[in-house]
Amino acid sequence: MRCDRVWIKARLATLAEGAPGLGVVEDGVIAAKDGRIVYAGPASDAPAFDAAEIVDCEGRWITPGLIDPHTHLIFGGDRAHEFELRLAGASYEEIARAGGGIVSTMRATREASESELVAAALPRLDALIAEGLTTIEVKSGYGLSLEHELKSLRAARALARARAVSVKTTFLGAHALPPEFKGNADGYVDLVCREMIPAVAAEGLADAVDGFCEGIGFSPAQIRRVFETARAHGLPVKLHAEQLSNLHGAALAAEFGALSADHLEHLDEAGIAAMARAGTTAVLLPGAYYFVRETKLPPLKALRAAGVPLALATDCNPGTSPLTSLLLTMNMAATLFRLTVDECLAGVTRQAARALGVLADRGTLEAGKACNLAIWDIERPAELVYRMGFNPLHARVWSAVS
Amino acid sequence: MRCDRVWIKARLATLAEGAPGLGVVEDGVIAAKDGRIVYAGPASDAPAFDAAEIVDCEGRWITPGLIDPHTHLIFGGDRAHEFELRLAGASYEEIARAGGGIVSTMRATREASESELVAAALPRLDALIAEGLTTIEVKSGYGLSLEHELKSLRAARALARARAVSVKTTFLGAHALPPEFKGNADGYVDLVCREMIPAVAAEGLADAVDGFCEGIGFSPAQIRRVFETARAHGLPVKLHAEQLSNLHGAALAAEFGALSADHLEHLDEAGIAAMARAGTTAVLLPGAYYFVRETKLPPLKALRAAGVPLALATDCNPGTSPLTSLLLTMNMAATLFRLTVDECLAGVTRQAARALGVLADRGTLEAGKACNLAIWDIERPAELVYRMGFNPLHARVWSAVS
Ligand SMILES: [Zn+2]
Ligand SMILES: [Zn+2]
Repeated sequence: MRCDRVWIKARLATLAEGAPGLGVVEDGVIAAKDGRIVYAGPASDAPAFDAAEIVDCEGRWITPGLIDPHTHLIFGGDRAHEFELRLAGASYEEIARAGGGIVSTMRATREASESELVAAALPRLDALIAEGLTTIEVKSGYGLSLEHELKSLRAARALARARAVSVKTTFLGAHALPPEFKGNADGYVDLVCREMIPAVAAEGLADAVDGFCEGIGFSPAQIRRVFETARAHGLPVKLHAEQLSNLHGAALAAEFGALSADHLEHLDEAGIAAMARAGTTAVLLPGAYYFVRETKLPPLKALRAAGVPLALATDCNPGTSPLTSLLLTMNMAATLFRLTVDECLAGVTRQAARALGVLADRGTLEAGKACNLAIWDIERPAELVYRMGFNPLHARVWSAVS
Repeated sequence: MRCDRVWIKARLATLAEGAPGLGVVEDGVIAAKDGRIVYAGPASDAPAFDAAEIVDCEGRWITPGLIDPHTHLIFGGDRAHEFELRLAGASYEEIARAGGGIVSTMRATREASESELVAAALPRLDALIAEGLTTIEVKSGYGLSLEHELKSLRAARALARARAVSVKTTFLGAHALPPEFKGNADGYVDLVCREMIPAVAAEGLADAVDGFCEGIGFSPAQIRRVFETARAHGLPVKLHAEQLSNLHGAALAAEFGALSADHLEHLDEAGIAAMARAGTTAVLLPGAYYFVRETKLPPLKALRAAGVPLALATDCNPGTSPLTSLLLTMNMAATLFRLTVDECLAGVTRQAARALGVLADRGTLEAGKACNLAIWDIERPAELVYRMGFNPLHARVWSAVS
């Protein structure tokens, strides 16, 4: 078989759907042609390859390139000072007076140019890439006006030109209420639905539409309007749901066939059943759980029992999860949520691809998929979950196919 | 003033004793000669320097090089598989049958040669160095026989020859009971006191002696014998104390003028008072607290009120804290223990130096101290504590003086 590159003497965690556990192949081979995997499996079953390049992996492990399916990577400023004040005992009022909170991020995002937003995001992206990331979702949601939401999505798209990585963008206009709409959330949702989503769709700037359904965010009725508008423009939806309380956002998302419902600490049985029926993926965000010192755990037993796919993400954002490591995300999911090693690794590969609607194209090591690989200096995949603050990535392969 | 190197246009967090907060100097200069700081302070007060090299820091922050005052960096094998089994629901018995627990680390450590132990530890050390570490404490304690404890300490000493870093070694023979002494802890302590400590002292392999005072470790009476022997050989002591229960180990350590008492979740008022009187530093290990899902917090209010110095360490070890990041350690101390940013940064610099008995020589940016610097691409020191899984180190300077 003719191909461009072959990786030999590798141990594979294929994460292939239906394979037991991680889909381990002890003496494995991967072959790629034109950026796609043409073979991934045991050396013993492999055809003879006529390859331009052969890479001897010397027993290293290969997993699918990692996927972060929920980030707010594009924002201006940071909230380190707010964090510092809070630790020093400042009240919320004092922090607000010192310019803290999401409004401070909105202001800094509005003040930044598109290229400044890209420049600020690149070090965060680079940290993720250094751990084997090949696909990332990036949301808008700190511009909160037509101009600045479009600028944020353009900056997110620009990341894909600046680095060897695939970017899926999500419009999150319904993230928070900008101060100019104080007391008029419906008016802001009008703006989101009548101006922002049509403009975003016209420019092809977003691959999905998201919202924050919460007492401090938007009501289910308001989110429903956002989802209806997204549907009218042919955009799939997802939702920040059940993070701080149970507003039945996950069921609402499922009703719209959402790709994912995310956070979910306060999710109930009805929401789980709705997600299972709709095939909506649960995206768990243990970094935010840790950082805000949440104590309510997502209902993992029931999610597993219902067969809801479990993905993991950094939720990288300045207010509640300044996290730029999927390895650490896996450790937190294991340590804090008691996910198994297999669940953690599937959560940042196969299930993360599912959460982004790209499972047909990536997320596992299978013939036909994009050749996105993470090659690791480890003895067993569990090390990727077990260690804290250690990056054993040997090499990353990203293929510009779509 | 003649000197070798001058760093200009820097913002300094000097961590100088007695200075308010972090000892910030906004327009700062550091000058070094023969590996020692000859000036660290405001540019406006600096003498004229005749320097061989001038480094323009372009507004970057400089802190003292980071210090990790409590690690078990030298060990064979790892415990990733045990972690995996535990998450999959295996009982302690099943894990023991699968070869888990500290005895598995002891076996792997005994089987490894000195150079294999060094090779295994170097990636862990490199991860710490990549974040600006310049001094590290490394304990023995997985050999648990004369031969293998000596080998472990030699491996720890060898780390300092393999990398540009200062290593303080600690003999921790009284870490766990090796299986050959089952039911005869006093017999093992005899071995520690009659053979191991004299041999360690004769070879000059340890800078201090440590023990694990706990129901599953050694009793206060046994630790007292270890401490008396250490004192007889002129070695300072420290102690793993009050991690799982309150055996009054910290007070015992203080009685021997210990450099530090470490862990301390179950520490009581009497122990705090004894530590304060003795000038014993509290070394907090939030990584272990996080990894074993401890819920009892160390008594921080009382420690602060008593003026006990608070240091932070990774406790890097395969069983309860596979952590190789002091940045993440600071984040955990802030997030989980509510240490302030200033306490966190002092904890891995000035107070860590104090815990190792080397404060006169390093741990702050002050004239006369070793020129160990960490230079950071940040806008404010709080970023070093706030972010998770992000390393903004620009450069590290380590000076081979002692
Ligand atoms: Zn989010
Ligand atoms: Zn320890």
